[in-house]
Amino acid sequence: MPSERVDLGDAAPVTSLTRLDESALIDRLRRALGPSPDWLVVDIGDDAAVYEPARNRLEVITTDAVIDAVHVDRRFVPAAAIGHRAVAVNLSDLAAMGATPRLLTLSLALPDDFALDDFDALVAGALAVAGRHGARLVGGNLTRTPGPLVVDVTAIGHVHRRRILRRTGARAGDSIYVSGCPGDARAGLQALTDAGLIARDGWPLVTAQYLRPEPRIALGRALASSGVVTSAIDLSDGLADGLRRLTDAQGLGCLIEAERLPVSDEATRWWKKRGTLAAREMLDGGDDYELLFTVRPKAVRRLAAETKRLSDLPLTRIGSVTRDRGCWLIDAAGARTPIAGGFDHFSR
Amino acid sequence: MPSERVDLGDAAPVTSLTRLDESALIDRLRRALGPSPDWLVVDIGDDAAVYEPARNRLEVITTDAVIDAVHVDRRFVPAAAIGHRAVAVNLSDLAAMGATPRLLTLSLALPDDFALDDFDALVAGALAVAGRHGARLVGGNLTRTPGPLVVDVTAIGHVHRRRILRRTGARAGDSIYVSGCPGDARAGLQALTDAGLIARDGWPLVTAQYLRPEPRIALGRALASSGVVTSAIDLSDGLADGLRRLTDAQGLGCLIEAERLPVSDEATRWWKKRGTLAAREMLDGGDDYELLFTVRPKAVRRLAAETKRLSDLPLTRIGSVTRDRGCWLIDAAGARTPIAGGFDHFSR
Repeated sequence: MPSERVDLGDAAPVTSLTRLDESALIDRLRRALGPSPDWLVVDIGDDAAVYEPARNRLEVITTDAVIDAVHVDRRFVPAAAIGHRAVAVNLSDLAAMGATPRLLTLSLALPDDFALDDFDALVAGALAVAGRHGARLVGGNLTRTPGPLVVDVTAIGHVHRRRILRRTGARAGDSIYVSGCPGDARAGLQALTDAGLIARDGWPLVTAQYLRPEPRIALGRALASSGVVTSAIDLSDGLADGLRRLTDAQGLGCLIEAERLPVSDEATRWWKKRGTLAAREMLDGGDDYELLFTVRPKAVRRLAAETKRLSDLPLTRIGSVTRDRGCWLIDAAGARTPIAGGFDHFSR
Repeated sequence: MPSERVDLGDAAPVTSLTRLDESALIDRLRRALGPSPDWLVVDIGDDAAVYEPARNRLEVITTDAVIDAVHVDRRFVPAAAIGHRAVAVNLSDLAAMGATPRLLTLSLALPDDFALDDFDALVAGALAVAGRHGARLVGGNLTRTPGPLVVDVTAIGHVHRRRILRRTGARAGDSIYVSGCPGDARAGLQALTDAGLIARDGWPLVTAQYLRPEPRIALGRALASSGVVTSAIDLSDGLADGLRRLTDAQGLGCLIEAERLPVSDEATRWWKKRGTLAAREMLDGGDDYELLFTVRPKAVRRLAAETKRLSDLPLTRIGSVTRDRGCWLIDAAGARTPIAGGFDHFSR
């Protein structure tokens, strides 16, 4: 990112991005950022940023993009929520590793019709959620594009070598837990899509879960500290997908109790209104950023002790890992149905 | 990036991206990567990658995107060259800091008409230049897009705390040097644009400089070791832009001797054919990834000693830093013209 002294006087109102150059936009970004933390040796404004790695920790890195008309829809997702989501989906990946966020980079491809107010709102949304979880923006890239808005984020955190959460450690007999109420995001997206541009008034909890999912950083760290969690993943691609990756992909299976699935009251009402089954929608739905994890048998008390500070966030035991491959949903009457589905951006 | 065991059998020819899901593409990527290096504790396939930071070094991070129809044109830039450029522009930023590359992430937004062969070629082009400079791909993201191809790369390297090259250290009296022959990329791009799809036969040196610029990693490290380089920048946005950032943006100026500008023979012939001045095109042209740097007075011998291993790469003293602000070009007769121009992706 180039350094620049262009001063974008506040007295001169500028509302169109095409009247601004990259340097002036970077200047706006910098003003939103404030002073450099101690560990940031070279901040935004040089060819690259330079920072001290966290002491006695491993670094954790992930990258994820949010694209208009693929992952979000600018017609009903406000710019601030797009910025929020782009950062949150990356922090959620760090949470799933048990990592503590530290820094991020932001690469924006902006269409010509993207207004300056939207730029400011997108940046504010991104910085707010990053700041809440201790992540500092240290670099970025701005370019125009003839295509849709693209927000690409790379996030870096750190983790103790013996506290890494992975996808690969589940064992037969482990309990399977999920945080929060997955499926809310899918209900929220559907509510926004159905009602179009003016949807933000109704269905406040599920739409918030879609528009502004909160990455489960504190939970991920608590799970990593507990020593009883054998594997973890975030639910960006849905519960069914997460279950398969933690079990089937490891040569194991799972049995999920339909009655235990933590569908929220609002999502239950929403899917009832639409005449579909909330549990099925929960399994298939993407865009949730809850954590799915497996816990050693008989470790429930230890898990509860480690996560008691997170009292607002429900953790629900939904089933267990089986030696036989295949993921099954079992209802109250004991009937089993296979868990299929899941989420692929290429087939969306 | 999700883990996946889908096996894309080589026996079943697949030529269209839409028939592949993200997991199968990631599988192809992994096969191209080979085994994990020792410092990579969790490789591609989990929610995030985990790595040991380099010992006793600071980390250096940069991000940059290449977008079809903005930074490249798929009609005459082969997919392998797009992958190469996307990595090279990031490594060039690391070079300008004096850093040693270590790892990178790759975020791809792929249009529906992007063929599988192109995917493979893009990845191969990216990995080849990364590997040549010691950078390992550790993570990424793949998504489809209704818009143009977007290749977003974040690169991380490391540098000794006392050997960071910055943009801000030039002093009046310093000599100004440039590596290679900036302007070749602009000539190459023009040659490709003029001749359209079949241009790759003619003007081999300048088109190669545009299609496959080699990041000046070894030079950057040598400059950082020398202890005589006061500031440095890479020429992604052109020589005029670089000169202003190293001097005018620091409250200084420069005097550049037109006769010393290292225009290559091929670029000279090319611009002559088009009836324009090679020196002017060199100053304005972007897309070169040479290094521009300032050197303490009377340190020429030390600089030569530190860079003698790089005998293939010419380093040319083109002028000096002045106390008075403003960047000037001076010709053999002593006439001065101001150096304006430069490159802004928003006004391109």
